[in-house]
Amino acid sequence: MPMKTPDEYLGSLRRMKPRVFVQGQKVENYVDHPLLRPAINTLALTYAMAQDPQYRELMTATSNLTGEVINRFNHLYLGPDDLVKKLNMVRTCAQKALCILRCMGGEALNGMALGTYAIDQKHGTDYHQRFLKFARFFQDNDLICAQALTDVKGDRSLRPYQQADPDLFLRVVERRKDGIVVRGAKDHISAAVGSHYIFAMPSRALTEKDRDYAVAFVVPVDVKGLTHIVNTTLKSAEHQGDHPVSSKYSTVESLLIFDDVFVPWEHVFMCGEWDAMEPMLFSFATTHRHSRCACSAGVTDLLTGGASLIARYNGIEKASHVREKLTELSTISETYYSCGLAASIFATKTASGYYAPNMLYANVGKTWTAKLFHDSTRMVQEIAGGLIDTVPSVSDCENPELSSAIDKYLKGRADVPTDERLKVFRMLQDMTTFGTVCYWSTISATGAGSLQGAKIMVARETDFAAKERMVKELGDMPA
Amino acid sequence: MPMKTPDEYLGSLRRMKPRVFVQGQKVENYVDHPLLRPAINTLALTYAMAQDPQYRELMTATSNLTGEVINRFNHLYLGPDDLVKKLNMVRTCAQKALCILRCMGGEALNGMALGTYAIDQKHGTDYHQRFLKFARFFQDNDLICAQALTDVKGDRSLRPYQQADPDLFLRVVERRKDGIVVRGAKDHISAAVGSHYIFAMPSRALTEKDRDYAVAFVVPVDVKGLTHIVNTTLKSAEHQGDHPVSSKYSTVESLLIFDDVFVPWEHVFMCGEWDAMEPMLFSFATTHRHSRCACSAGVTDLLTGGASLIARYNGIEKASHVREKLTELSTISETYYSCGLAASIFATKTASGYYAPNMLYANVGKTWTAKLFHDSTRMVQEIAGGLIDTVPSVSDCENPELSSAIDKYLKGRADVPTDERLKVFRMLQDMTTFGTVCYWSTISATGAGSLQGAKIMVARETDFAAKERMVKELGDMPA
Amino acid sequence: MPMKTPDEYLGSLRRMKPRVFVQGQKVENYVDHPLLRPAINTLALTYAMAQDPQYRELMTATSNLTGEVINRFNHLYLGPDDLVKKLNMVRTCAQKALCILRCMGGEALNGMALGTYAIDQKHGTDYHQRFLKFARFFQDNDLICAQALTDVKGDRSLRPYQQADPDLFLRVVERRKDGIVVRGAKDHISAAVGSHYIFAMPSRALTEKDRDYAVAFVVPVDVKGLTHIVNTTLKSAEHQGDHPVSSKYSTVESLLIFDDVFVPWEHVFMCGEWDAMEPMLFSFATTHRHSRCACSAGVTDLLTGGASLIARYNGIEKASHVREKLTELSTISETYYSCGLAASIFATKTASGYYAPNMLYANVGKTWTAKLFHDSTRMVQEIAGGLIDTVPSVSDCENPELSSAIDKYLKGRADVPTDERLKVFRMLQDMTTFGTVCYWSTISATGAGSLQGAKIMVARETDFAAKERMVKELGDMPA
Amino acid sequence: MPMKTPDEYLGSLRRMKPRVFVQGQKVENYVDHPLLRPAINTLALTYAMAQDPQYRELMTATSNLTGEVINRFNHLYLGPDDLVKKLNMVRTCAQKALCILRCMGGEALNGMALGTYAIDQKHGTDYHQRFLKFARFFQDNDLICAQALTDVKGDRSLRPYQQADPDLFLRVVERRKDGIVVRGAKDHISAAVGSHYIFAMPSRALTEKDRDYAVAFVVPVDVKGLTHIVNTTLKSAEHQGDHPVSSKYSTVESLLIFDDVFVPWEHVFMCGEWDAMEPMLFSFATTHRHSRCACSAGVTDLLTGGASLIARYNGIEKASHVREKLTELSTISETYYSCGLAASIFATKTASGYYAPNMLYANVGKTWTAKLFHDSTRMVQEIAGGLIDTVPSVSDCENPELSSAIDKYLKGRADVPTDERLKVFRMLQDMTTFGTVCYWSTISATGAGSLQGAKIMVARETDFAAKERMVKELGDMPA
Repeated sequence: MPMKTPDEYLGSLRRMKPRVFVQGQKVENYVDHPLLRPAINTLALTYAMAQDPQYRELMTATSNLTGEVINRFNHLYLGPDDLVKKLNMVRTCAQKALCILRCMGGEALNGMALGTYAIDQKHGTDYHQRFLKFARFFQDNDLICAQALTDVKGDRSLRPYQQADPDLFLRVVERRKDGIVVRGAKDHISAAVGSHYIFAMPSRALTEKDRDYAVAFVVPVDVKGLTHIVNTTLKSAEHQGDHPVSSKYSTVESLLIFDDVFVPWEHVFMCGEWDAMEPMLFSFATTHRHSRCACSAGVTDLLTGGASLIARYNGIEKASHVREKLTELSTISETYYSCGLAASIFATKTASGYYAPNMLYANVGKTWTAKLFHDSTRMVQEIAGGLIDTVPSVSDCENPELSSAIDKYLKGRADVPTDERLKVFRMLQDMTTFGTVCYWSTISATGAGSLQGAKIMVARETDFAAKERMVKELGDMPA
Repeated sequence: MPMKTPDEYLGSLRRMKPRVFVQGQKVENYVDHPLLRPAINTLALTYAMAQDPQYRELMTATSNLTGEVINRFNHLYLGPDDLVKKLNMVRTCAQKALCILRCMGGEALNGMALGTYAIDQKHGTDYHQRFLKFARFFQDNDLICAQALTDVKGDRSLRPYQQADPDLFLRVVERRKDGIVVRGAKDHISAAVGSHYIFAMPSRALTEKDRDYAVAFVVPVDVKGLTHIVNTTLKSAEHQGDHPVSSKYSTVESLLIFDDVFVPWEHVFMCGEWDAMEPMLFSFATTHRHSRCACSAGVTDLLTGGASLIARYNGIEKASHVREKLTELSTISETYYSCGLAASIFATKTASGYYAPNMLYANVGKTWTAKLFHDSTRMVQEIAGGLIDTVPSVSDCENPELSSAIDKYLKGRADVPTDERLKVFRMLQDMTTFGTVCYWSTISATGAGSLQGAKIMVARETDFAAKERMVKELGDMPA
Repeated sequence: MPMKTPDEYLGSLRRMKPRVFVQGQKVENYVDHPLLRPAINTLALTYAMAQDPQYRELMTATSNLTGEVINRFNHLYLGPDDLVKKLNMVRTCAQKALCILRCMGGEALNGMALGTYAIDQKHGTDYHQRFLKFARFFQDNDLICAQALTDVKGDRSLRPYQQADPDLFLRVVERRKDGIVVRGAKDHISAAVGSHYIFAMPSRALTEKDRDYAVAFVVPVDVKGLTHIVNTTLKSAEHQGDHPVSSKYSTVESLLIFDDVFVPWEHVFMCGEWDAMEPMLFSFATTHRHSRCACSAGVTDLLTGGASLIARYNGIEKASHVREKLTELSTISETYYSCGLAASIFATKTASGYYAPNMLYANVGKTWTAKLFHDSTRMVQEIAGGLIDTVPSVSDCENPELSSAIDKYLKGRADVPTDERLKVFRMLQDMTTFGTVCYWSTISATGAGSLQGAKIMVARETDFAAKERMVKELGDMPA
Repeated sequence: MPMKTPDEYLGSLRRMKPRVFVQGQKVENYVDHPLLRPAINTLALTYAMAQDPQYRELMTATSNLTGEVINRFNHLYLGPDDLVKKLNMVRTCAQKALCILRCMGGEALNGMALGTYAIDQKHGTDYHQRFLKFARFFQDNDLICAQALTDVKGDRSLRPYQQADPDLFLRVVERRKDGIVVRGAKDHISAAVGSHYIFAMPSRALTEKDRDYAVAFVVPVDVKGLTHIVNTTLKSAEHQGDHPVSSKYSTVESLLIFDDVFVPWEHVFMCGEWDAMEPMLFSFATTHRHSRCACSAGVTDLLTGGASLIARYNGIEKASHVREKLTELSTISETYYSCGLAASIFATKTASGYYAPNMLYANVGKTWTAKLFHDSTRMVQEIAGGLIDTVPSVSDCENPELSSAIDKYLKGRADVPTDERLKVFRMLQDMTTFGTVCYWSTISATGAGSLQGAKIMVARETDFAAKERMVKELGDMPA
């Protein structure tokens, strides 16, 4: 089946009826809701770019399952080259729309592909074939899925089975002949609105006592019993002109409540195999951090471009401290990207034949994105100056009592129209202080797993013993 | 005259009729406007605390001009001890309401006190007596003034007289027998709404050709010809519960348009003395940076407290990386404060008899506030985790279709009510990603002058020659 | 008794016969040993400065015990002012000779003063009077003592009583009628060579089972049974001209072996009171970190001066990145100093009547000295360039076959003699890469306790509960 | 001709008679001089590894000029893969011997290969063929060359032709029929001792007036008129056991004086073409920074291994701050390497057909090596603790009066022999405070060009205009 056009994508969403709440209101037409549409626009961009000759090579791949040309976001990684291309695709998309929202689906697909294989190897199950059947359908129909990973977790010092309320991690509450019933909640689920399906998998290592929590499956976004409580980076439908970035392209995150949701066996990809799920989880986490190296680079490219523009509009583009900061921003982008590249080049071939990004380099890259994003916004704000905070609203500019005064007094360099200058201030505000950064600064600190989580993986993947041996060899010491 | 109660303060505001625009709308009752009131609440807090026995000593001083007990924000600095007390007052206020908004008035008063004296010494003028007369009136009536420093500046690579439009820096357009007429605009003027008067002074060093720009004066906030185009950290009157901090205490900043405003001579404190204004400007800038050392410490205290609370509510308060970050936040607060303390202890006595904070230490402190604030928010976000971004709205929580699910699933430690936990997330969101941080991160980067400006002052105030001599002495080299 | 002249000090050392080993050789005349003399010169400078009218006020104080004018290094702190003056004294000394080596003595005296008082309060002992008697003698004779704190510690994961060898922490092996016998080793003991006495106290918190390790006392440096195994920053007696700083003023550190050393009761200030020693230890550690704020500032002043000089000699003093780095170096110095100042101003009055620096601020300052020193040397090296590593030796310059070529080719700015330029390179090399930095970079990282230790104290001294209350108050939440 | 064995390499050095001075003494047998031999050992290791089956593939390549297997250090880069292999070779060598010293030769060869081609294209000269002839001879004989880049430079604010002394940059003083005569000095020339040839090229961009300074050539190390004034990281032939790293493998740097040295035309590769030398210079600089990404990774691997070892020997390997630092060290290594990898993968194919590393990524990597090295040594010192500074000398340990006390008291974990623990301390001292770090910290700050130079190249190679366009596109603004 050919890839969808953006319109076909919107049409496919309209045919679904998820139970969605935004700011306390139940939403009937979620596709056209002013707070949700910018996120759907972002996702639609991935369909448009796949049709665009300029981006077609970057945005598409040939499926190993179907032999058809598919959107690259839905592709399984068959080698380092696929990972390099995914990296470049994500960076390019982020340069256009910041968080492109579709990464997690492909990451879940890849995690499932190698993860179901690993479970089957240990337990003799047939999850891998089930999954491949679903994957073919998914690629064929050019669908989007969200990845429901993070449980609500309750008291972080307790394991799932130790919680006062057993539902604080998603779990199987009933095993039936035709499928399973699950209960619990997943939080911060990006693009659950805008997707066709939701992949769920556990968010942490489990023990034998946590067996019921070891469950992975896929459900349609409008499955019975599923409720979406939604947050968006755009917070108000009013004054959208003051938020030129997030009213155009935005993110959307859901608290998903699974109130005894039924999943037929054909869509269950793990159920109880708590001791075999590491490959699935690690693959997903690593692949997501691999994407983060690219999207953070793309977002930093935008910050750099905006800072460079506003420096010129203000007449300070030659100041040495401005040059220094622009250079540092560029250094930061390329550092993220370099780590992502290394994670691609040194990808691991798993038993399933599918590749996962190198865990060490993906986590090194994620570490930097968490450490340097806030400082990047600081540099952009220093270059822009106070108007990034106090730029007059579009309503001010449109009020005839004020417009000429604003036009006169907020002019920067004489050859740049005031409204163009103010637009860039609003964009930088949107990207570094408002809507967008709320999301970006937080996901830089906590998304794709926490900084601390990335550090733990760096430690795990570093061969300290080998490095100790180097020292002993240099010191002519016994091994 | 006794100090005003908060109600008397509100009453005094109601008697003024400034021309105020918010989000493109002209505001008639600015005191009760939902977007402006939180800032007025902040200012009212300074009146309430001065009446409160717990804070009276901290918040009041005895005027050297009138012999009366006055609000310490309106006090002139007679020695290091006054600066230490101001520092402690500002930190305490910031611990209650973040930016307390009233600092700039006192800083302007002090800058005028020593600045007019310096001009008189050089030019034989009588500005100092004029100023003292106004200051007595001001202290007597327990008033607030805003400080209008920053010009809109146009092309930053050009001096005022070189700009394509001569009005891009505030200037005297007419000198009359009874006073002067000024034209121009001042931007990012905090608490212009909520003040009784506005002090204006130049924002940069001037040359002889810029003589008309060398003007300092005071005008009532509702003087004829003055328009306020206002920004607030609280952006919407709706959903205030989602912004528990900024809907209670907020900041407010104005773009002030001076459309041929008349100022009688008794309120003019400089007019043309371009070569004698350095003390006034430096004093104001230094004193503001001195305050910044305190308010940044207070705000970081709040961030630390919030991070400490949420760590306990999440059950991670004993994790080593959490302890490490909480410790670093405390280190940061006390570093700001230590620099402010040094700037107080080593205050400079000026020719006027009034003291200014030490320029080196005030700028060292300001440098750190600009460098470390963004990283502080990063650490808070890392400790809090993703809910700082995606906490459900109050409307969600109040919807009976959702409330029990939210209460069940967003519980952290079993003994902490969910709504209390969510409240702290909303507060931290408000302080590190939304309304408040928009203001804080930007003023940390650019307020009280830029980081680059602070560095220039550090360089200027460092005696590099003395340090070179130390090296030569240690090296037994000729001096 | 009047304070000693430098010559009298040297004479007093010659009358002592400590058992000293340097680089495997037993040293008979330690005062004139080429590797030890630079450290003794450093200590002698404290005697010379006390006699010098320019520094007398800074360097002396009036003893509360004897009423005589004494060297300020031997003074007990009677209030914040004493701590401010100590801070200024240490910074000034460091600007002349880097580590001045005499701080630890005064810090031990002060720790003993309040620590013995605290033990007596708890245990009804009479250590405080014993100590005051010794202190009077010590001040009267203008003596120097070293502070033996750090035990060799064996396996850091075990307590003293758990070690495979019980002697890995210094302990009492015999209690006799006339005194005690101690065994063990103390490491990294600065200025043990050059002192008259050595104060010993435990280096960590102890439990009841560690009772024999709870011992504090003073012994002469040449007491029977004590061996000094010595390290110096100057590593070779040859080519001293290549090390112009460390061959003039150096440090010296000893591994002290206590091989069953007898201590008469009058010199024992704690013996077994493991549960009452915290004030003594904390006071010493805090006071030492207080000094570190000052000496690190002074050393950074020297680095700044050297970098400023060499920038001018190279013709790059106006490059923006050079100005930026010099400014940052100045910022760093004054930050250390500000924290030390805050620790002085907010000093704690103990039950004994003596003051200790504020623990929070002293540890905040120490944290920065550990974090920023290495980066400071980086900036100095960047400004200086490659000759800081490869400056020709004095022997090269003195060889007639080479001297004219060196003079011709290593000339920088035409008006600066080549040999003067090379001298500054050698000094900076000595201070940032060689002898001196070996000591400075290590003590910045580990001296005055580790960075980690300082952080633990910052956490301990921060009132997190108070900061949590601020947040609850702002959020109108129940306390 | 087959590659040389280490012995053949030593033999080839013995046949040369360079004029070498060390610490003011003329050296006759430079191969066996105790201060020079460790550097020659380092170079010899590159011959040994090329013979070793374990490393042969890594260390050798097939020459495109001769078709023979050659040492990879002498290979011309024919594609990204050659650059990846060079990167891996350099990291592996650095893990064995720190600075491997042979990189600069290959970098000069590659710079000459594409640089002579570029000059010929512009000027119609035949330098490229001359160079290829020399390159064949060089590869055939498995030779080493040093790269003489950095001029002594005099006053850095002046161009070569503006200097008071025209010889402060190397220049042509005579053009003869058979060749040219050059005069001047090159400084910090690594491995000039130990090489067979020296390549010289200009160290900065030139103008038409600097025409005589635009000269590139090769000369034997013992050419008439050339003097080496040498520095080594090992500073003394005594107490080599105290410097276990630098007495085994060391670096060596020379101030080279060219006192009217004659160069025949066949060895001249540029003479006057000041306007065509950018490719040669940029290629060399970029290629050297590419190597720096690898060697800094390898050295940091050693620091990490040493810190990991000593943490275990001290019993603190499980402390959270130790894990955190070890993780950060690993992150740092892999970041350097990732940037080097990106510079390899995105290598530029030049007109000559030869490849140069990508300038952007090589300079991003160099930036990090300059920024993070000093902090890395800080972390190692924090983990190791004070003994890294005060470890007793080997002479102390060998003195029978001291050895048993040292063995007893400096024991760490009970199952690790004291002498093994002390050896690791000495190695870490050698690598982070002494000899080696003098070199490493300085070259991290200034080698491979300065940090500032790297930043300038990052700025130059960043397409800010493209990033500005992304912002305009996102903002729907006119291009």
